[in-house]
Amino acid sequence: MDHERPASSHNDHAVMDHESSEQPSSQPSSQPSGRPRTMTSTEEIDNTITRPGSVKINVTGAFIVDPDTATPALRHGAGGRTSPSHHETSDIRLPNHTAVVSHIAVDIGGSLIKLVYFSREVHSTDPGGRLNFQIFETDRIDDCVEFMKHLCDKQLALNGSRPGELCVMATGGGAYKFYDKIRDVLGVDVLREDEMECLIIGLDFFITEIPREVFTYSETDPMHFVTPRETIYPYLLVNIGSGVSMLKVTGPHSYERVGGTSLGGGTLWGLLSLLTGARSFDEMLHQAEKGDNSKVDMLVGDIYGTDYGKIGLKSTTIASSFGKVFRKKREAEAVAEALGGSASSEPSPEHVKSEHEASADRQETRHTVGSNPPFAAADVSRSLLYAISNNIGQIAYLQSQIHSLSDIYFGGSFIRGHRQTMNTLSYAIKFWSKGSKQAYFLRHEGYLGAVGAFLKRQPPNWGRRASLEGMEPPTELKKREKTGGGD
Amino acid sequence: MDHERPASSHNDHAVMDHESSEQPSSQPSSQPSGRPRTMTSTEEIDNTITRPGSVKINVTGAFIVDPDTATPALRHGAGGRTSPSHHETSDIRLPNHTAVVSHIAVDIGGSLIKLVYFSREVHSTDPGGRLNFQIFETDRIDDCVEFMKHLCDKQLALNGSRPGELCVMATGGGAYKFYDKIRDVLGVDVLREDEMECLIIGLDFFITEIPREVFTYSETDPMHFVTPRETIYPYLLVNIGSGVSMLKVTGPHSYERVGGTSLGGGTLWGLLSLLTGARSFDEMLHQAEKGDNSKVDMLVGDIYGTDYGKIGLKSTTIASSFGKVFRKKREAEAVAEALGGSASSEPSPEHVKSEHEASADRQETRHTVGSNPPFAAADVSRSLLYAISNNIGQIAYLQSQIHSLSDIYFGGSFIRGHRQTMNTLSYAIKFWSKGSKQAYFLRHEGYLGAVGAFLKRQPPNWGRRASLEGMEPPTELKKREKTGGGD
Repeated sequence: MDHERPASSHNDHAVMDHESSEQPSSQPSSQPSGRPRTMTSTEEIDNTITRPGSVKINVTGAFIVDPDTATPALRHGAGGRTSPSHHETSDIRLPNHTAVVSHIAVDIGGSLIKLVYFSREVHSTDPGGRLNFQIFETDRIDDCVEFMKHLCDKQLALNGSRPGELCVMATGGGAYKFYDKIRDVLGVDVLREDEMECLIIGLDFFITEIPREVFTYSETDPMHFVTPRETIYPYLLVNIGSGVSMLKVTGPHSYERVGGTSLGGGTLWGLLSLLTGARSFDEMLHQAEKGDNSKVDMLVGDIYGTDYGKIGLKSTTIASSFGKVFRKKREAEAVAEALGGSASSEPSPEHVKSEHEASADRQETRHTVGSNPPFAAADVSRSLLYAISNNIGQIAYLQSQIHSLSDIYFGGSFIRGHRQTMNTLSYAIKFWSKGSKQAYFLRHEGYLGAVGAFLKRQPPNWGRRASLEGMEPPTELKKREKTGGGD
Repeated sequence: MDHERPASSHNDHAVMDHESSEQPSSQPSSQPSGRPRTMTSTEEIDNTITRPGSVKINVTGAFIVDPDTATPALRHGAGGRTSPSHHETSDIRLPNHTAVVSHIAVDIGGSLIKLVYFSREVHSTDPGGRLNFQIFETDRIDDCVEFMKHLCDKQLALNGSRPGELCVMATGGGAYKFYDKIRDVLGVDVLREDEMECLIIGLDFFITEIPREVFTYSETDPMHFVTPRETIYPYLLVNIGSGVSMLKVTGPHSYERVGGTSLGGGTLWGLLSLLTGARSFDEMLHQAEKGDNSKVDMLVGDIYGTDYGKIGLKSTTIASSFGKVFRKKREAEAVAEALGGSASSEPSPEHVKSEHEASADRQETRHTVGSNPPFAAADVSRSLLYAISNNIGQIAYLQSQIHSLSDIYFGGSFIRGHRQTMNTLSYAIKFWSKGSKQAYFLRHEGYLGAVGAFLKRQPPNWGRRASLEGMEPPTELKKREKTGGGD
């Protein structure tokens, strides 16, 4: 492994300081376009040095490395990411970062582990390197730890760090649950970081530093990128993982978990795996794209036979998710019983048809009589995706209304660049707020926490962490701390 | 059918006029107790005569007729109501109503039809009569219409009304969808009334007129009755049927549908019928009482291994409803595959075990290996009941917060006096509002719309309806209308 090894530099200052940008901005897309500021003031440099939360990774000029840079929107928007075991998230290149990076970061959630690591480019003579993104199912924590071990070994050689300098930044619930396991297997320090704080640091990084990262979504303009900007607060962050957390963020270190819901990605995943037999989340999303929710949902038109115009409900509005199921199921059973079929009169397990079976049905007649009601997996998937996305969208709107926030960022691994999901969330915000609030999405939406953990602290070989571990801080820091600077 | 037939009286004035009671009341239980006012002012009598929305049923002294009046709380709270085909809702006695009643009222929802009718007491020498409550599944509209036909015939004889005087007050979506059917079969007038307006009239009636009807719920004080009161506005009405509507009500004729959610009773019913094979809603509720949601829900403790104290999440907080299902299911499949079992590797229908099967499992070991994952119907039922109730509770809180409402009434056929449901809704309101808002429940919660429709207009033989049908109004009314009284 002979490769370029740039010298470490203490001049790699980040441009991630948002102290002066607390004004709300409700019209992001009308902001002047252009690159974010690339130079830092003396004060900012001081802040960067003295404040433990500051970031030392040089992100100047960072950009997303697209295999096909000409059509990033299409590639992403078409739901190009497949199962969690496939890594298809685009890397982010940091062309100006030349310091040794001896840490990796993991965000261990209830269902998924998100891993971020920095790598030099072996076959390139350019300086810098790239951030890599990897995902594992939390069940497979052992695979993940093994991969991290491989990374640590590789990083040692690639980045020239010494064995004692390696460390793992860990966040999410699993940072606590699997702390001992990770430390024991890797034999390196594991630094745990607060989940909510990491989410915000990660999101701030993506909003302010990465071009073509943040976008709005609508059916007519599916992926409209927003220019990186400095004025980002206040906003609502809706992080949709297994469950959903909603954070009111008013500054880089000022946030509050205002709410959430247990109806999140884990609910969709869990229920659909029971109902449709799908074996992966992406298979379920794929099913949803083909489905027709009106086969299982009770619409306003099903109840009224028409609109309920007086209160503004269209006949196509979903009145009750899965509201048609009970009736249809019983009808099918009654017919089967009348025909002497096998429908049970005692409580018995029932199921929906797989897409394969349902397709076969559609070619004949949809309402095939039998002991199994004719619900297609695709229809059920679409209904539940709508139900959960609409619900999150409504609660997000209500929270943003209560807290006077007009920018709503949706993050988390639930979204996965899936068009229907984004469209439903975006439409819900637009509908409920009458257009006064804006939903934003991110291409690296699942990695907010992991990137935040990665950026949270400087690598140990830069000398800063030492002071946090109880060692004597550098002279200048020591002096500042004694003069009473808050942290 | 020889029976007492009280004379019709035009002095039967209702006491349901709330024009003068628009002040909010956030501390209902601290109000002085006592009977509601029983006499009406001249102005109110005028209003009652001239305003089409006024109520002519004499509800003075109305009370709930309990089979066991000594323990109404226990009887009701224990979930005494069973399937929709069983009529177990207590009647309401109207001891002072002596006029002929020649109408019945139906509220036809997406899943259930709620029917209210008045009857004389055949074997009693007391004056008055009672309101009867009956429920049908909307599927069985024909049974319902047949029952209504029987009622009309009976009413003709019992109440002494002439054939042309009979009419049906209908509300809910089905009032439109099934209008022709009802009219054709019954051969009587069908008057359609707005669903939301009926809900409010019905709720106002229950709040102000019926003792031991409205109650608060908590684990330590399961059914705490609230004294009937006059000052009831503003409030939020959360009506949970197949779907959920939320109405901000600021006066008898002043309301707005501020929101709702498609995740309602129809969702629980539909999903659980697919997942557990239960054949009735009450069977599902019964299952839920025995279940342990932590077998399928991902709790904060499952992710963190402990509390997430920093943001106030206890280890027992549900992080993700059904968040454990996917993992457990795959584990079971993997074991089955390893043992050469029948677990499929292609997408295939899956199901949970019925309570019967699960009970058998529990006696051996819960995690029985096989192609079916070991999810008990009871656990699944409890999880989904929690998820949907919590969600409604949270959205209700958020809406009440946005609209500055502190009294939240939960109505609709979803609740059915089920302890867990009420406890979850009540707790959600208390938790989110930090005790500043109060959830209220009703013993006739499913009949708000039907009772509202029943009370909405006077019986036709009282002469009022005639004017609405284009006939000449009585002289006094005619004069008033010409002098420009608004309606």
